[in-house]
Amino acid sequence: MSSVDRQLDDLHETITSELPADITVSDVKYEGPELVVYTRDPKKFARQGDLIRQLASKLRKRITVRPDPDALERPRDAREKVMNVIPDEAGVTDLDFHEDTGEVVIEAEKPGMVIGRHGSTLRDITKEVGWTPEVVRTPPIESSTVSNVRNFLKQERDERRDILERVGRQIHREEMSDDEYVRITTLGCCREVGRAAFILSTPETRILIDCGDKPGAEGEVPYLQVPEALGAGAQNLDAVVLTHAHLDHSALIPILFKYGYDGPIYTTEPTRDLMGLLQLDYLDVAAKEGRAPPYDSEQVREAIKHTIPLEYGDVTDIAPDVKLTMHNAGHILGSAVTHFHIGDGLYNVAFSGDIHYDDTRLFNGAVNDFPRVETLVMESTYGGRNDYQTDQDDAEKRLKEVINDTYDRGGKVLIPAFAVGRSQEMMLVLEEAMRSGDIPEMPVHLDGMIWEATAIHTTYPEYLRDDLRDRIFHEDKNPFLADQFNHIDAGEDERQEIADGGPCIILTTSGMVTGGPIMSWLRHLASEEESTLTFVGYQAQGTLGRRLQSGWDEVPINDGESGRASKINLKMDVETVDGFSGHADRQGLMNFVKTMNPRPEKVLCVHGDESSTQDLSSALYHEHNIRTFAPKNLETFRFL
Amino acid sequence: MSSVDRQLDDLHETITSELPADITVSDVKYEGPELVVYTRDPKKFARQGDLIRQLASKLRKRITVRPDPDALERPRDAREKVMNVIPDEAGVTDLDFHEDTGEVVIEAEKPGMVIGRHGSTLRDITKEVGWTPEVVRTPPIESSTVSNVRNFLKQERDERRDILERVGRQIHREEMSDDEYVRITTLGCCREVGRAAFILSTPETRILIDCGDKPGAEGEVPYLQVPEALGAGAQNLDAVVLTHAHLDHSALIPILFKYGYDGPIYTTEPTRDLMGLLQLDYLDVAAKEGRAPPYDSEQVREAIKHTIPLEYGDVTDIAPDVKLTMHNAGHILGSAVTHFHIGDGLYNVAFSGDIHYDDTRLFNGAVNDFPRVETLVMESTYGGRNDYQTDQDDAEKRLKEVINDTYDRGGKVLIPAFAVGRSQEMMLVLEEAMRSGDIPEMPVHLDGMIWEATAIHTTYPEYLRDDLRDRIFHEDKNPFLADQFNHIDAGEDERQEIADGGPCIILTTSGMVTGGPIMSWLRHLASEEESTLTFVGYQAQGTLGRRLQSGWDEVPINDGESGRASKINLKMDVETVDGFSGHADRQGLMNFVKTMNPRPEKVLCVHGDESSTQDLSSALYHEHNIRTFAPKNLETFRFL
Ligand SMILES: [Zn+2]
Ligand SMILES: [Zn+2]
Ligand SMILES: [Zn+2]
Ligand SMILES: [Zn+2]
Ligand SMILES: [Zn+2]
Repeated sequence: MSSVDRQLDDLHETITSELPADITVSDVKYEGPELVVYTRDPKKFARQGDLIRQLASKLRKRITVRPDPDALERPRDAREKVMNVIPDEAGVTDLDFHEDTGEVVIEAEKPGMVIGRHGSTLRDITKEVGWTPEVVRTPPIESSTVSNVRNFLKQERDERRDILERVGRQIHREEMSDDEYVRITTLGCCREVGRAAFILSTPETRILIDCGDKPGAEGEVPYLQVPEALGAGAQNLDAVVLTHAHLDHSALIPILFKYGYDGPIYTTEPTRDLMGLLQLDYLDVAAKEGRAPPYDSEQVREAIKHTIPLEYGDVTDIAPDVKLTMHNAGHILGSAVTHFHIGDGLYNVAFSGDIHYDDTRLFNGAVNDFPRVETLVMESTYGGRNDYQTDQDDAEKRLKEVINDTYDRGGKVLIPAFAVGRSQEMMLVLEEAMRSGDIPEMPVHLDGMIWEATAIHTTYPEYLRDDLRDRIFHEDKNPFLADQFNHIDAGEDERQEIADGGPCIILTTSGMVTGGPIMSWLRHLASEEESTLTFVGYQAQGTLGRRLQSGWDEVPINDGESGRASKINLKMDVETVDGFSGHADRQGLMNFVKTMNPRPEKVLCVHGDESSTQDLSSALYHEHNIRTFAPKNLETFRFL
Repeated sequence: MSSVDRQLDDLHETITSELPADITVSDVKYEGPELVVYTRDPKKFARQGDLIRQLASKLRKRITVRPDPDALERPRDAREKVMNVIPDEAGVTDLDFHEDTGEVVIEAEKPGMVIGRHGSTLRDITKEVGWTPEVVRTPPIESSTVSNVRNFLKQERDERRDILERVGRQIHREEMSDDEYVRITTLGCCREVGRAAFILSTPETRILIDCGDKPGAEGEVPYLQVPEALGAGAQNLDAVVLTHAHLDHSALIPILFKYGYDGPIYTTEPTRDLMGLLQLDYLDVAAKEGRAPPYDSEQVREAIKHTIPLEYGDVTDIAPDVKLTMHNAGHILGSAVTHFHIGDGLYNVAFSGDIHYDDTRLFNGAVNDFPRVETLVMESTYGGRNDYQTDQDDAEKRLKEVINDTYDRGGKVLIPAFAVGRSQEMMLVLEEAMRSGDIPEMPVHLDGMIWEATAIHTTYPEYLRDDLRDRIFHEDKNPFLADQFNHIDAGEDERQEIADGGPCIILTTSGMVTGGPIMSWLRHLASEEESTLTFVGYQAQGTLGRRLQSGWDEVPINDGESGRASKINLKMDVETVDGFSGHADRQGLMNFVKTMNPRPEKVLCVHGDESSTQDLSSALYHEHNIRTFAPKNLETFRFL
């Protein structure tokens, strides 16, 4: 009998002895980090309000109760009873009964009303029908990404349960080593921005944190092939943890499955969906640019299938000696500061991922309050001595000026923007500016992936800034649903019509003018002197965006029909509005550490160019007397 | 056709075109780092004195010429002709003809006379018979180790040639990576003394430097199992380099062959022999102490078979992007500072191994003059703030006092000493002291492995201090052959007789009184108040030597016959004579770096306890403004 089976037997016995005699436990299993308790008496279980919480705190495990399949009411009988329990205002859009696990997935416009105060409505459902309810939000804006992911996971339920069971046994395996150490190996993203990838290892466990590409430097991928990474086989990784969906962190995660990885990916639910969206786009772009994609969509699906979503603040066992907790990072939807608690009080490491320290319109500022942290691995994108950003108020004022000036001239405002994050921030600024009369009401057209990315945001309001979330939850004043927002979904004809029309604002990808619908918009608008091309995000060296921003006035045009390349002259006004950034600036990074609780003993400054990481490292050392490092790629640091 | 075959074809062509038309080249092969040129005209080749040197410098390769087997004179005809060429005074003791390679191995008491001025006699031999001569020294003192190694290698010639050919092709393989980095991974010996093991890696090549055990801490072995070491398989190592034979550097080399390693070990010839001796003793001790040995003698033989001996100063290709040069380290016979030249002028790393900076009686001081060195990995055994040693003159004076006092009382001097290094140094001190009349003539008995280790020293006089070597070479005044030295080879009876006799000196293992014949000597001499137990080397914490040194007066005795354990009272005088050490002291370590040419940019201080490595690291930083580190085990440093 394996040690895990022995453990489960012991748990079975303990749970039985803790429960009232009339509640029988038919089986006890691990599924991923959860302990699943099967009972023939789900209704009785539900009636004893606090039983699960008591068990969980006694066993120090996350516990899910499921009815034994034999004890289940038939779906056709249960459906009506379930609908009777849930208030009509909840807006249930789908009920899906899974007889294999006794779960009923309830998709509703207002999940809160399905849950009830402290979960009371959920318990009522079980008391009525015995089934275990699980609630998901009906996307307020239809999102093909969200529905594709949900449908795919529904299809793959059986395999997914196998994966979860295997992962569960792996997490709860017996510890084998009596050695003690904690190490971090840098596989990318050191003294550079891009290809984030780190290995956190103990004698017991090896965890890969992020696995991104390097934008603008295809081929510069993380050092996955060195012995300490996948040299000994991808199956030697215990877990992958993803801080957020940006491609410089997520692009190469699917390749792991090509290399034979078959374990879990821990991340937030919105990151899972955004990751799928961005990875598929990444494959698209590679194909369009005639590069061989490093993996195909099959591996993107594998990545999604292997994802175990965590909520901010959940403390989750991911290995016998490692507990993971994700916290809001304030950077993009679902972005997380990931905190690793190693051993039983042995050591704690936090990876900042990308962070924004102050609150933005979209997100609360990054969390920097932890039970313990000895070492912090910290982004340094704007860590340089002089990397101070315009503050958001001034940035918004300037943007409104540009819009008003352009409007007064009868022109259009064309804003290249990243689909995820920057665009939604812009939408919130524009919606409020129009509502408050700071700028005139006019259509705001959303082109490229922006609409889809926005739809994903509205599916996960819990991950947005608290007052924004409240607006979406309680007041039905979802700003993303404002009338002025128009999704460009009819292609060139629609663009032509808009180009021929009056003043408007166009938000479109790609953010650095390296391809996508912005190219078409430039073709339509280049000759309009009254219109304005407005940059609101960082333009990397070597991109067309950077060239146009610095005064270049030629736009290369690839005539789709004839296939001939030509150029047109840019006559538009070109403006740059600084101060919209998903990254903390120098002051924000310093503040993150200054107000961090507790103050870390060591900080590794990564995710910044050489001078930024070294500047930040030296500033943190001098101001706070912390041991700081600006690692190179391919180094290994040992703590303990 | 593989790239190596293409390379060899090109070389074949170039060599043919460089040679006079009447010399034909029948084949060109790599054997280890050497390029072997087979010719049907060996005699003509030999007649053109400088041809090989010219070819070598043109091709930048080490070149060996061998006769095509078809072109060979028969051994029975050749034997007499060879003997006629060599002067009688050379003292040839064996001629061994190898028809497979056309080599004749000549064992002689005076190899120099077989070689002749600038190799003239060797060339004469080839001119006469066509065979390629190779010369080895007849050990002046019979050494079973040396003759066992030589016989074993003779037996295994075929397999050894296969190994060399495979290694040769591996060394000269095409470089695959266009990435550039140099890394050092610490697998042991950091903030501790023992289990030396480092990996030097480039994108192309992975080299293991040393693989020792930790004396007094069985089971604390180098971290070979981590992914960056052997995790991806031992076959992923390209080469093993051994700095010297001490077990804290060599003990676990044979285990690599158990793990599937099948590549070369680069070290000096004396280190190869001493390594074999010490490893077999290591297995013996493990067996006696009832521990399961980590490998058996079969793997020790594998290690010897895979050794490619290098001479000090030879610049040797050991990988497509790495050249290795070994230099005298002054520590023990054959010990080397190993210098790695990486890429074509890309980077240079030196590993000090264990060093002695000043000259000793046995060895010249460590070499610290290199074409280039950017990073030095340096031992720190006596790197602590206060680790200054008595100087050698004072130490010798004190030793002579102890001997004279004991002699005057009619007692015996019992000196526990390490077989390799310290014992031979003692022998030289004693021989000179008697010759110059500083102490009376009396027998010096050598027990345990000391005699055998001494025999190995006399086999390799080229590795000894220059004036000592000259005495052995030119004057036949080999001090190790002095009459007073007596090899204890008749066991307990002989010891009893000596114990019953008059004043004498006894040098015996083990050096820290942890076992071996010293235990028997203590039983014989413990009660003699007139005799002296004299410590001349470091006694580690926890050893019986340390306890006796600090005043303990009970010696546990295991009565061989009855098997009963008992104790006897130590009545002997106990003296400690400091100042004999194979290691540089704090001053020596500082001087090694201070006078090093060129000064390294970075120094990693290893092979010392935590405070020694940190003290030395901080002193080097403050005095020379070098970037210094006191690494932990399991870290990886990247240079470049
Ligand atoms: Zn279903
Ligand atoms: Zn990001
Ligand atoms: Zn990033
Ligand atoms: Zn040594
Ligand atoms: Zn050593």
